[in-house]
Amino acid sequence: MKVISNSPGKYAYVIGPYAEPTETVEPGETFIVETLDAFENRITSPDDDITQIVTLPFVNPLTGPVYVNGAEQGDTLTVTIHSIEVTRDYGVSALIPEFGGLCSTVFTRTLQPPLPARVMLHPIADGRVTFSKDLPIAPIPYEPFYGTIGTAPELEAVSSLSPGFHGGNMDAADVCPGNVVHLPVNVPGALLHIGDGHAAQGDGEVSGVATEIPTRGVLTVDLIKGQAIGTPRVISDDHLMAVGSARPMEDAARIAFYELIMWLESSYSLDRLDAYQLCSQVAKVRLANMVDILYSVVAKFPKAYLPVR
Amino acid sequence: MKVISNSPGKYAYVIGPYAEPTETVEPGETFIVETLDAFENRITSPDDDITQIVTLPFVNPLTGPVYVNGAEQGDTLTVTIHSIEVTRDYGVSALIPEFGGLCSTVFTRTLQPPLPARVMLHPIADGRVTFSKDLPIAPIPYEPFYGTIGTAPELEAVSSLSPGFHGGNMDAADVCPGNVVHLPVNVPGALLHIGDGHAAQGDGEVSGVATEIPTRGVLTVDLIKGQAIGTPRVISDDHLMAVGSARPMEDAARIAFYELIMWLESSYSLDRLDAYQLCSQVAKVRLANMVDILYSVVAKFPKAYLPVR
Amino acid sequence: MKVISNSPGKYAYVIGPYAEPTETVEPGETFIVETLDAFENRITSPDDDITQIVTLPFVNPLTGPVYVNGAEQGDTLTVTIHSIEVTRDYGVSALIPEFGGLCSTVFTRTLQPPLPARVMLHPIADGRVTFSKDLPIAPIPYEPFYGTIGTAPELEAVSSLSPGFHGGNMDAADVCPGNVVHLPVNVPGALLHIGDGHAAQGDGEVSGVATEIPTRGVLTVDLIKGQAIGTPRVISDDHLMAVGSARPMEDAARIAFYELIMWLESSYSLDRLDAYQLCSQVAKVRLANMVDILYSVVAKFPKAYLPVR
Amino acid sequence: MKVISNSPGKYAYVIGPYAEPTETVEPGETFIVETLDAFENRITSPDDDITQIVTLPFVNPLTGPVYVNGAEQGDTLTVTIHSIEVTRDYGVSALIPEFGGLCSTVFTRTLQPPLPARVMLHPIADGRVTFSKDLPIAPIPYEPFYGTIGTAPELEAVSSLSPGFHGGNMDAADVCPGNVVHLPVNVPGALLHIGDGHAAQGDGEVSGVATEIPTRGVLTVDLIKGQAIGTPRVISDDHLMAVGSARPMEDAARIAFYELIMWLESSYSLDRLDAYQLCSQVAKVRLANMVDILYSVVAKFPKAYLPVR
Repeated sequence: MKVISNSPGKYAYVIGPYAEPTETVEPGETFIVETLDAFENRITSPDDDITQIVTLPFVNPLTGPVYVNGAEQGDTLTVTIHSIEVTRDYGVSALIPEFGGLCSTVFTRTLQPPLPARVMLHPIADGRVTFSKDLPIAPIPYEPFYGTIGTAPELEAVSSLSPGFHGGNMDAADVCPGNVVHLPVNVPGALLHIGDGHAAQGDGEVSGVATEIPTRGVLTVDLIKGQAIGTPRVISDDHLMAVGSARPMEDAARIAFYELIMWLESSYSLDRLDAYQLCSQVAKVRLANMVDILYSVVAKFPKAYLPVR
Repeated sequence: MKVISNSPGKYAYVIGPYAEPTETVEPGETFIVETLDAFENRITSPDDDITQIVTLPFVNPLTGPVYVNGAEQGDTLTVTIHSIEVTRDYGVSALIPEFGGLCSTVFTRTLQPPLPARVMLHPIADGRVTFSKDLPIAPIPYEPFYGTIGTAPELEAVSSLSPGFHGGNMDAADVCPGNVVHLPVNVPGALLHIGDGHAAQGDGEVSGVATEIPTRGVLTVDLIKGQAIGTPRVISDDHLMAVGSARPMEDAARIAFYELIMWLESSYSLDRLDAYQLCSQVAKVRLANMVDILYSVVAKFPKAYLPVR
Repeated sequence: MKVISNSPGKYAYVIGPYAEPTETVEPGETFIVETLDAFENRITSPDDDITQIVTLPFVNPLTGPVYVNGAEQGDTLTVTIHSIEVTRDYGVSALIPEFGGLCSTVFTRTLQPPLPARVMLHPIADGRVTFSKDLPIAPIPYEPFYGTIGTAPELEAVSSLSPGFHGGNMDAADVCPGNVVHLPVNVPGALLHIGDGHAAQGDGEVSGVATEIPTRGVLTVDLIKGQAIGTPRVISDDHLMAVGSARPMEDAARIAFYELIMWLESSYSLDRLDAYQLCSQVAKVRLANMVDILYSVVAKFPKAYLPVR
Repeated sequence: MKVISNSPGKYAYVIGPYAEPTETVEPGETFIVETLDAFENRITSPDDDITQIVTLPFVNPLTGPVYVNGAEQGDTLTVTIHSIEVTRDYGVSALIPEFGGLCSTVFTRTLQPPLPARVMLHPIADGRVTFSKDLPIAPIPYEPFYGTIGTAPELEAVSSLSPGFHGGNMDAADVCPGNVVHLPVNVPGALLHIGDGHAAQGDGEVSGVATEIPTRGVLTVDLIKGQAIGTPRVISDDHLMAVGSARPMEDAARIAFYELIMWLESSYSLDRLDAYQLCSQVAKVRLANMVDILYSVVAKFPKAYLPVR
């Protein structure tokens, strides 16, 4: 299997059409992707000063762009995630001043002094994440996913910290092994970017940082020719999901539910108003992130309620 | 056991300190509460015209106020929900013009024509809700909860359609049998109001209406004297929860997480920044509603990660 | 002329239908209203501790309710403001912790420590407000208005700190001498409440407090029978205005423009899409407040562009 | 004087660091810039179908990038606007489905059918804009400005439809002849982009489109070396202004006021809390746009209240 990994110093900090592809794959191909953690693997001690290490815009390095042969504007790229392994024995989380869900930020400005910076290292072993050696907190299951996965917009180059219609930094825990992610193809080759591995994350990623890890994952890409989507979708064994990313957060939820309902109409013969009313009885929602440049909300339709044909 | 049920025509459409209590209970007392559905049990056919039946502000009738002896400002009222039975063989859902998550409303105004009104009746039997006799959708489990539960603010009388710091129309499916709801006491007697039974509801209640039912429930109220809370809390076997209600939706999430973190600090000896960073790894979030006068978000801390003492 | 002034200790802190009217007036009647400042005239020194004086919900005392004979649900109450005199030789402004546009609040929660409290007294004389004796800032013109003016909702009692469809704490500088305010009538007598005099205020009232003054004003009320409005309107010599109050702020702007456009259609024979497109060329907007329980935005149509008949 | 005008087919639809500069200028140089209208000058009749002409992302063509010799990251670029002439005898406005302030959009999704598309041509002559030949509306003064002006971000390429910290599509009428715009320099040469001339625009640009014109303007650029700004600033004879662009709209207002207050502190020796409290008495606000990818708000400090030294 091909192993895709950017050269040192060549990671992508934007998702766009301007960088040279680092690798080319075929539709249907299964390959390995290696990613750095969101801090470029540069945090090795709780004494590290994150404000020195995190220097915008060089945060959240992505592997790619990966060129998918035959992908054309108007197609949908599917990414099946088979596995995500952590390639280090610890994850990192942090408090970053002016970043997070319960502090002022460059968007939600206040005159108050910022919260302090700090770093925690979380040992990972045997499928468990240890939050802290000092606090008597039970181990957290290792449930890895990619915080960031996206395809290039046609003209824009979007910060790797931002989610959007192209995917990106959604921080949706549903982008995990076993699931299939659907992304829009806006440019030839789709230009897939992946990174931001998380060993564990709470809904909303409230402090702004999950248990950040470098990863080695196995993926298969494929194409749905001539079928466009409005925003990223995810399919699991149990759910159809659509991801909305916007501010304010209600707009993210609206985008997600709109896409989900259009999907139920176009692919499952449910009238859109029936689907709307049914979602109001059975849908699930994950708040993926409340901290990034746009907020992300995942609307989920349980397959158990799909119309029986 | 006492049975609490408002007289016909005497339901509460606001939660406030101005109405006479309909009943008085003692701390520790277990009693029965009967509630009408959100449309006052007036919808009996899918041909009913909801725009004639739903005439603001007389929507979402509540049972109460219930006066809890000994409750004083600064206390917390606890409500343990033992059971919620549906007292009719069907639930009602609807599309209401200018109300819902995917349409313009009196708050999010547009110049577009509104969506049509419509009503669906959902048969309920044997613990199952049938979405539609005409559509081949699998039955939905009967998982009842109170959409609306709250205590009177000190001076304000708040629409029964609005959630807030006083509880109210949170539409949080966690207000269900087996769980304990904590509400602030702002006035003597607390003045508990309950209603808006739901047999089933999707996260976000996206079309604006769940499977609305009249109910008969068994509750126990009690007081935590001299301990105030900032926003409603819910305790289940597995989770500590706090409910934030606000617009935009990110403010609801902020309120919920803030209360949860303050709770972890004050009751579980977790430093607030530790709690913040831990929530970012393990918290769960329920989007309760994206349709009401304020949006409601439930932040949940799994008890499994409470510090072991 | 009648002088309307609440008795000490009898001020209104909510706008609702539950308090007894303090006075009755006739349609067409001109009368005097006396109001306290938002802090109940209790701040007399820059050394006063505002956190002791401002004890929610007893902030922003209003004069009223004033019962207008003949006012019935579905009418519009018009209030012509002839003059607003300050009845003290200084105004007060302040920084109030957890209140304001550039700090965290009970709605926009953060974990950061709050900004400090502080009080400033602003001498007023000869039509000029002195910002500070210590800072070399030019005098500010005395341009008084009522921050709060509203009529009772049908069932709700709304904090005097909140604006809404009923008017209330809009903090719109257009509620000033020379202008006519239109308010909805939801209950018999309309129940007018007035207060929160400002000697000067910046757009948005960014720190949360204007130059707060007690006032003596001359008003005329009248009724437009059988004509309802959707949200408060203001008419000046030059502009038709509609006030939207909501969160997020874009919803306030949407409400204001929607009402303005409906008004242009119903009263000035402009097709609503023509009016929409015309507003996009000529409308003015005032950000009234970015700090209250809801934000208020005033959409203004210059009368110069009304269709010539 | 140099005349800067992109070749046909070579207009910029993103503001970023990836396109080759079309021209180079020196600090202090005065030159002419020619711009197309937002629809690429392709609308010539009210019968044109805007949905065929406006094909995203190829909307709002910009002239540039213009390379300013000597500009380095951390500098501020100043652009003095001397004049903006319209180079056609009419402007264009339109209703674009799923775009505007009072309709659902790709961000604020609803299930309602969209508003119709339509186009209006507005004759311009003798300093006056005629809204419509069919409606008896008084002529609108020709008050031109650039809707879009910005410098390249370091890594991102941002749609020409979006405003942001880099400037961009702010639709702020203060970017007009007589005023000086300050923009951040993030890359060598700054890479200035200009376009989207407006002959007239209402605050908020509520329908999404102003009176769009092609222009010929005279500008002078210069550099403030080694002084960075947080968001665009504008200086007029009377006001210091800062532009915030964000969603929700309150965040745009927060950014604008934060920058204004920091400016008053750093350049005018006003303590930031004094400036905050003073702005609450005297600031003005322009709602620049309520329709673009981010909303833009201009916070204005009247120079009359600057401390007298």
